[in-house]
Amino acid sequence: MKIYVTRKTHFAAAHRLYNPNFSDEKNNEIYGLCNNPNYHGHNYILEVTVCGEPDPETGYLIDLKKLKEIVEEKIIKYVDHKNLNLEVDFLKGIIPTAENLAFAFWKRLENEIPSGKLYSIKIYESERNIVEYRGE
Amino acid sequence: MKIYVTRKTHFAAAHRLYNPNFSDEKNNEIYGLCNNPNYHGHNYILEVTVCGEPDPETGYLIDLKKLKEIVEEKIIKYVDHKNLNLEVDFLKGIIPTAENLAFAFWKRLENEIPSGKLYSIKIYESERNIVEYRGE
Amino acid sequence: MKIYVTRKTHFAAAHRLYNPNFSDEKNNEIYGLCNNPNYHGHNYILEVTVCGEPDPETGYLIDLKKLKEIVEEKIIKYVDHKNLNLEVDFLKGIIPTAENLAFAFWKRLENEIPSGKLYSIKIYESERNIVEYRGE
Amino acid sequence: MKIYVTRKTHFAAAHRLYNPNFSDEKNNEIYGLCNNPNYHGHNYILEVTVCGEPDPETGYLIDLKKLKEIVEEKIIKYVDHKNLNLEVDFLKGIIPTAENLAFAFWKRLENEIPSGKLYSIKIYESERNIVEYRGE
Amino acid sequence: MKIYVTRKTHFAAAHRLYNPNFSDEKNNEIYGLCNNPNYHGHNYILEVTVCGEPDPETGYLIDLKKLKEIVEEKIIKYVDHKNLNLEVDFLKGIIPTAENLAFAFWKRLENEIPSGKLYSIKIYESERNIVEYRGE
Amino acid sequence: MKIYVTRKTHFAAAHRLYNPNFSDEKNNEIYGLCNNPNYHGHNYILEVTVCGEPDPETGYLIDLKKLKEIVEEKIIKYVDHKNLNLEVDFLKGIIPTAENLAFAFWKRLENEIPSGKLYSIKIYESERNIVEYRGE
Repeated sequence: MKIYVTRKTHFAAAHRLYNPNFSDEKNNEIYGLCNNPNYHGHNYILEVTVCGEPDPETGYLIDLKKLKEIVEEKIIKYVDHKNLNLEVDFLKGIIPTAENLAFAFWKRLENEIPSGKLYSIKIYESERNIVEYRGE
Repeated sequence: MKIYVTRKTHFAAAHRLYNPNFSDEKNNEIYGLCNNPNYHGHNYILEVTVCGEPDPETGYLIDLKKLKEIVEEKIIKYVDHKNLNLEVDFLKGIIPTAENLAFAFWKRLENEIPSGKLYSIKIYESERNIVEYRGE
Repeated sequence: MKIYVTRKTHFAAAHRLYNPNFSDEKNNEIYGLCNNPNYHGHNYILEVTVCGEPDPETGYLIDLKKLKEIVEEKIIKYVDHKNLNLEVDFLKGIIPTAENLAFAFWKRLENEIPSGKLYSIKIYESERNIVEYRGE
Repeated sequence: MKIYVTRKTHFAAAHRLYNPNFSDEKNNEIYGLCNNPNYHGHNYILEVTVCGEPDPETGYLIDLKKLKEIVEEKIIKYVDHKNLNLEVDFLKGIIPTAENLAFAFWKRLENEIPSGKLYSIKIYESERNIVEYRGE
Repeated sequence: MKIYVTRKTHFAAAHRLYNPNFSDEKNNEIYGLCNNPNYHGHNYILEVTVCGEPDPETGYLIDLKKLKEIVEEKIIKYVDHKNLNLEVDFLKGIIPTAENLAFAFWKRLENEIPSGKLYSIKIYESERNIVEYRGE
Repeated sequence: MKIYVTRKTHFAAAHRLYNPNFSDEKNNEIYGLCNNPNYHGHNYILEVTVCGEPDPETGYLIDLKKLKEIVEEKIIKYVDHKNLNLEVDFLKGIIPTAENLAFAFWKRLENEIPSGKLYSIKIYESERNIVEYRGE
């Protein structure tokens, strides 16, 4: 009996898409408005999914309050109301595209799940732009 | 041509998370507020997904009105505006966590799908807490 | 410059609609499934709106973190994961229809708003059933 | 590092479900209200998901603005504010069920994705009726 | 104690915006894509709000199940899965803009509300386009 | 026949809440995390409502495509993917709280509405924090 359990959270952050190895022209061509040197920002939605067999005694795969706390402790408190280019140690040297955020968040969480295994990190950068990483 | 067809429905129910084999302390430790002996409740969202090849003549995998009726007949009329601990025969002896509900709903539906096969039962216990079972 | 500021929160609760002065028949006739003596429940959404002139120095009518804390302190901690018929002192003797909840919540909050005045209490009992009270 | 990137778009269209090889009785029996000869319509939501490895230099699997343009060019401009039975060349001879739309949209897009591969076409015909095709 | 009670419903319909007194050029100029002679369609969301004093004995302004039935009986069954230009008697001679629909629905309902008074008809023609009429 | 017509749009921006006349301590005390000197950001939702009598010939109060263009031209192109503290001329010297944004957007739009009058500017800074200004 394999179950998927998802906890949805939010954070608000500023970022800029910019590769220091590219010329200004290339940065503008690739990232467009997202390359604004004064930053822009988003209300990110983060869905963390854990997969595994529920404990037959408790009926829980993982207590969602516990999962919420882990996501808060390992991710949200580092990124909420922050600048993703300047202030997040585990994002240093990483261009903060949603793709790269999903991968970096996976790395932060994969060894922190006390029961079941991390299955997916899904990020809604906006209502219409969504990225998912499943550890493959 | 394998298609996934999903019907979304709702039900409102009361429940309590409690294992009679645990001490009161252990029940409180594990289930916290969800262990309230006077119950609490939710507006559950239920997504039932069927998977298979559409009929080339009708273009339907399954008529969604038909799928809606099956879900109503086999699940919703038993759980909507009910107490999940006291009033649902097919949940007797089951701690009504979302994990266990997903599994129990799967059992209720797996042999009732007239075309295609049941692929997933997904339950939103709240906007932020989501559980899925895919029969694995 | 009159501004309306709204904070949205959630709570999950069990309730039953039942008037002890009515016969069982009348209770069933009026409240239908909502009269289930074993209770049912909802994820309620609560929107509290405050209205007034922002402070020209801060640009805030009211700090929404502050408003959130007031709503938590005066309402949410009393009703979340509770039985609205049995466990909430300020609802004693009140039939917990959404209409009556909106009025009772108004009474709890109207004198607690530190800047601006309470303008509206809006309750979504379900996605499709919504009630509002504006103190009129 | 395999990433799934989704772009959500919308279109509004009229359609009728009807198979010219069926008798009127059979069309009514199978399609019910959806067989109205004067048409009805929907606000369709379309989610297109692409899957692959992000470019390590840009951090993008695919620029979502680019993906948006492709979906506009190959699908939306043909179906938005159109009659799906009468006006869409690539739907000629196809009963416009959501199942058949998902398959037809896949065919329109599968060779148009410049980086990564098409992974899924998901169509919400209404809030409660959802169909997905993954090219299997 | 004046309460506002809202019931949200849905319907799917085809329509065309077109004034027979205008030239084709003027129809195209004013209505653009909405003037497609083959129709297009929407999933309309309809919110009906009633306002008044709740019955102190029941705690209800109006039973929302009753309000739902009235909206079904007087509006939804006439417009759902229909063509708004061709098939709805009470829309004959009316250009089916959301503005005109809101007014026509008000007329259908204003004398049908058994307790309280009709306060508002709100129509979401799409997620982003919303129209309201309050009987003023 | 007075109708309210609303157009919903989005923009993503960075900002910081900070009053240069306050000490650092006071800025931190009042704005908390929102005072981060490196900025944070949001996906803002903006709802612009116009009120008036529809044209009896067209059935439109205002063409929503036209209203969308006005909002794009006068607001969105100045604030989308921008830093609200540094880059928006019409926000110079204004602390970019949602309250102040609503007022500033009203000033930008109030004389630009070609039919009907501006009725409301509503801003969702996040899903749970909402501000409205109605010109009073």
